[in-house]
Amino acid sequence: MAKPKPISLSPLTLSLLILSLLFSSTVQSTLNVWPKPRTFSWPQPQAILLSKNFTISSPTHKHLDAAVTRYLRQVLTEHHRPLVPPDANLTNSPPIQTLTLAVTDLTSPLHHGVNESYTLSIPAEGASATIAAATPWGAMRALETFSQLVWGDPARVVSGIFIEDFPIFEHRGVMLDTSRNFYAVDDILRTIRAMSENKLNVFHWHITDSHSFPLVLESEPDLAGKGSYGAGMEYSPEDVKTVVEFGLDHGVRVLPEIDMPGHTGSWAEAYPEIVTCANMFWWPAGSKLGDRLASEPGTGHLNPLNPKTYQVIKNVIDDVATMFPEPFYHAGADEIIPGCWKADPSVQTFLENNGTLSQLLEVFVNSTFPYLVSLNRTVVYWEDVLLDAEIKVKPSLLPPENTILQTWNNGPNNTKKIVSSGYRAIVSSSDFYYLDCGHGNFIGNNSMYDLLPGTDPGNGGSWCGPFKTWQTIYNYDITYGLTDEEAKLVLGGEVALWSEQADSTVLDPRIWPRASAMAETLWSGNRDETGMKRYAEATDRLNEWRHRMVARGVGAEPIQPLWCIRNPGMCNTVHPF
Amino acid sequence: MAKPKPISLSPLTLSLLILSLLFSSTVQSTLNVWPKPRTFSWPQPQAILLSKNFTISSPTHKHLDAAVTRYLRQVLTEHHRPLVPPDANLTNSPPIQTLTLAVTDLTSPLHHGVNESYTLSIPAEGASATIAAATPWGAMRALETFSQLVWGDPARVVSGIFIEDFPIFEHRGVMLDTSRNFYAVDDILRTIRAMSENKLNVFHWHITDSHSFPLVLESEPDLAGKGSYGAGMEYSPEDVKTVVEFGLDHGVRVLPEIDMPGHTGSWAEAYPEIVTCANMFWWPAGSKLGDRLASEPGTGHLNPLNPKTYQVIKNVIDDVATMFPEPFYHAGADEIIPGCWKADPSVQTFLENNGTLSQLLEVFVNSTFPYLVSLNRTVVYWEDVLLDAEIKVKPSLLPPENTILQTWNNGPNNTKKIVSSGYRAIVSSSDFYYLDCGHGNFIGNNSMYDLLPGTDPGNGGSWCGPFKTWQTIYNYDITYGLTDEEAKLVLGGEVALWSEQADSTVLDPRIWPRASAMAETLWSGNRDETGMKRYAEATDRLNEWRHRMVARGVGAEPIQPLWCIRNPGMCNTVHPF
Repeated sequence: MAKPKPISLSPLTLSLLILSLLFSSTVQSTLNVWPKPRTFSWPQPQAILLSKNFTISSPTHKHLDAAVTRYLRQVLTEHHRPLVPPDANLTNSPPIQTLTLAVTDLTSPLHHGVNESYTLSIPAEGASATIAAATPWGAMRALETFSQLVWGDPARVVSGIFIEDFPIFEHRGVMLDTSRNFYAVDDILRTIRAMSENKLNVFHWHITDSHSFPLVLESEPDLAGKGSYGAGMEYSPEDVKTVVEFGLDHGVRVLPEIDMPGHTGSWAEAYPEIVTCANMFWWPAGSKLGDRLASEPGTGHLNPLNPKTYQVIKNVIDDVATMFPEPFYHAGADEIIPGCWKADPSVQTFLENNGTLSQLLEVFVNSTFPYLVSLNRTVVYWEDVLLDAEIKVKPSLLPPENTILQTWNNGPNNTKKIVSSGYRAIVSSSDFYYLDCGHGNFIGNNSMYDLLPGTDPGNGGSWCGPFKTWQTIYNYDITYGLTDEEAKLVLGGEVALWSEQADSTVLDPRIWPRASAMAETLWSGNRDETGMKRYAEATDRLNEWRHRMVARGVGAEPIQPLWCIRNPGMCNTVHPF
Repeated sequence: MAKPKPISLSPLTLSLLILSLLFSSTVQSTLNVWPKPRTFSWPQPQAILLSKNFTISSPTHKHLDAAVTRYLRQVLTEHHRPLVPPDANLTNSPPIQTLTLAVTDLTSPLHHGVNESYTLSIPAEGASATIAAATPWGAMRALETFSQLVWGDPARVVSGIFIEDFPIFEHRGVMLDTSRNFYAVDDILRTIRAMSENKLNVFHWHITDSHSFPLVLESEPDLAGKGSYGAGMEYSPEDVKTVVEFGLDHGVRVLPEIDMPGHTGSWAEAYPEIVTCANMFWWPAGSKLGDRLASEPGTGHLNPLNPKTYQVIKNVIDDVATMFPEPFYHAGADEIIPGCWKADPSVQTFLENNGTLSQLLEVFVNSTFPYLVSLNRTVVYWEDVLLDAEIKVKPSLLPPENTILQTWNNGPNNTKKIVSSGYRAIVSSSDFYYLDCGHGNFIGNNSMYDLLPGTDPGNGGSWCGPFKTWQTIYNYDITYGLTDEEAKLVLGGEVALWSEQADSTVLDPRIWPRASAMAETLWSGNRDETGMKRYAEATDRLNEWRHRMVARGVGAEPIQPLWCIRNPGMCNTVHPF
């Protein structure tokens, strides 16, 4: 069993924490905010009516204005009906008239590490609540918290409360693969909205892969023109602008990934000459697992030896850097499969002249990484670029100041390898954070399907099964096993939805509320004030939050029978089983 | 590995099969019908336009009329766009004008064992296609097949084809639990519609359980009045009539289950005096697993010793038998938990006087089963009533002619136990047919959630994990290990969706296309003409079928990247891995 470990806290936080501890028994069951604020004081569970003329006053800021407009409408019209009526007494105080926002620095851009802290004060009496935030983005977090404190018809809001809140981790993301199956722009916008409501702040958009190239680029129109799934299954420059602006309005960064040099089969529709092993059968008869041409169907790697490759890449990078103002740029570099490069005559010659596949990857990285850095981008790669068993580059090619590694294999061990080498890490461990796992296998005729009754089905062919439950995700401590110094290099985490067996029909329930589970652990942790994991309390609160998400139009899946929610505590157990 | 075993076939079927084998290479990739017809002959892959004035002529029959109206609209307006355009050539023949239905026996009710066979002939030339069916219900199956042969704009239909079709198993169902979480009537109707489109014919409605009693009964209005989740989460008599009639219009029987004497906690809201251990904590501190009060939260069993129990039950049975004309009645009888009965003083006295819990169950069965039989019902029980390790009745109480057992434990072994004892069986093996499995555990604070990284997470707390993939379901032979005589007692199977962690947000993707996988195995099997499992061919065809289901408004989950579908064969493997 995991040993309880206190979250490290600042002195100010600690004193507030002690304050809140005094009232923790009252507080825990009734403050339905997800993710839970770091610290709050709510001496008496009470509420106050929201005036029908309620307004929000705030300084002018393009994106904060949009958020204020949105939240004002929401608190006045949502009339949320909790599954369990809060035990906060409605006081006789006059209705609250105003929420006043004060923002210290209106110029902070929405970049990694931006200050998201805020305080929210809703007095027991008096006409005005107040938010104080360092930045507009922190103010948006505060508005979300405020909106979750409102319920009922007529609308009322928790009162006599002071919240001081700020995230543990600065990078809190959802990765969506839009190549294997397509998602409409509305799906993406809904996902970003739900992310902001969970205080998640990075939409990692795995836009392209071997299966389709849905991104329409002005400099390279044929990549989507020939490599997308077709008209109606592409993202135009206007679509991207819509997504990026929508992200800014919601405090969510949009981090593009153009995966390369592997996972690029779709590029071959426009440029067959720059792609090795394109459109080949992924695992030729008679070959061994290690000799297959792709990690999964379909095939194709960019050829590092063809100068044309870099002409196309430069155009792609230029366009993407223009479309996505985000200073992080994800360049992929996962799953280079030896057989794919080896299938190409030019690579064969290179190898015959004593070149290695790792050198080939170094050629590629040396021809692309410096250009990205020259565009003021911090380059995110999948960990493979340094940690792959066979094909990897020398660390000296990737200075830690310009490079972030996203880990997905081997649980906390690879996180440790990354940060102990001095690199910053984003954690997407497939053991915990892969949302697609556990739903079987998509290969057409895998012989393992053909099992006799009584045979262990394993995970039905899912390499990363079983399904990652919300509890598995909630339980994971992404700095597990690290020293304090190493832990500082962990920027945060991302849950990931790969789309071999997902599309818009399952988008919402595959992501929610499991991404909510990660959202809370990365914002305020997974332990209560005594250092114990807070499953039972979190379950109750997540039920309410899931219910509100569904009411807000996000089809999050249920985690319990309604009966459990209506009968608090009755679906718990005191037994270890 | 499972050894290929030919499906047993009639001589007529065999001769048609040999005919179709001659053309199997052409046929397999292009006849997109799910479930696959038993036999068909389609010498040349060709198609013919459907006239804009196309009509369907059929004999008058209340429910068949509804189906004809529905299918006529569908074939004229669906304009289905296949993912892979069929290679059937559109001939120059004049458009087809009419589909003529001939039905031998218009009086056959939609009961178990009704003849669902049909032939469908669409000539290569000539103005009229013909369906010949033994019953209106077979005609509905034929209409569905016809509708799946139509695509495009202008609409065209496969031509030069003769199909003779009939199911292997007569009972092909979906069970839905509407007690743990509620589903709107529209959800149920959509499910029944999708069932009929998959040639499934039994909607097993697990209406009530310990968590809620959503069924409004005229004789016992308080059961729902106090035991449902509330107004808006109930099924009125009018709702039931809607569902039953909708089922008839779609050739789907609606088989009600009122689970008892266990799983009845919700009855205690109206009648606490007839329910033992109601509203108790399900697993009191210090007690062992075997001493808990319920299989899961919440608690409650009907008390067999209280005469009032049977007064209420009689009213319930009378109302349910009136509302549901279906001759099968499911009376539950699963998971009697000793601790719940033992918690009651009257039961304690009974046991002190040398009574046993099995005798208590016999009291209950003797007081209810004969009454159901007197109402001309065949009683379906979960297997537990005879096979439970601890609490079960003597077989002599349940004559096989009036009793059917539904198996869910222990895979094919329990099927064997049931049929070798002379009972008919419905197969819902949790190893293969439970659609909810593999999504974790709903207990609030299970200590197993708190695992160190690197610890085997098992199935995340799902007792019946892993997730049952469509391939797992497709692979299962429900008569595995039986003699031919025993196999005759297997009526068919049902996939089951228990709703601890399901509601309308996930209904469609949890059921579809996995129920489609069972639908085909029960209709025409899972093997090709050579006796080999047909995974690759079935994958391609299921992709198309899933795509059509989504277009028809059923949110079935995807099973492959679109790329695989567009590139037939490229996502297969010749390798066992």
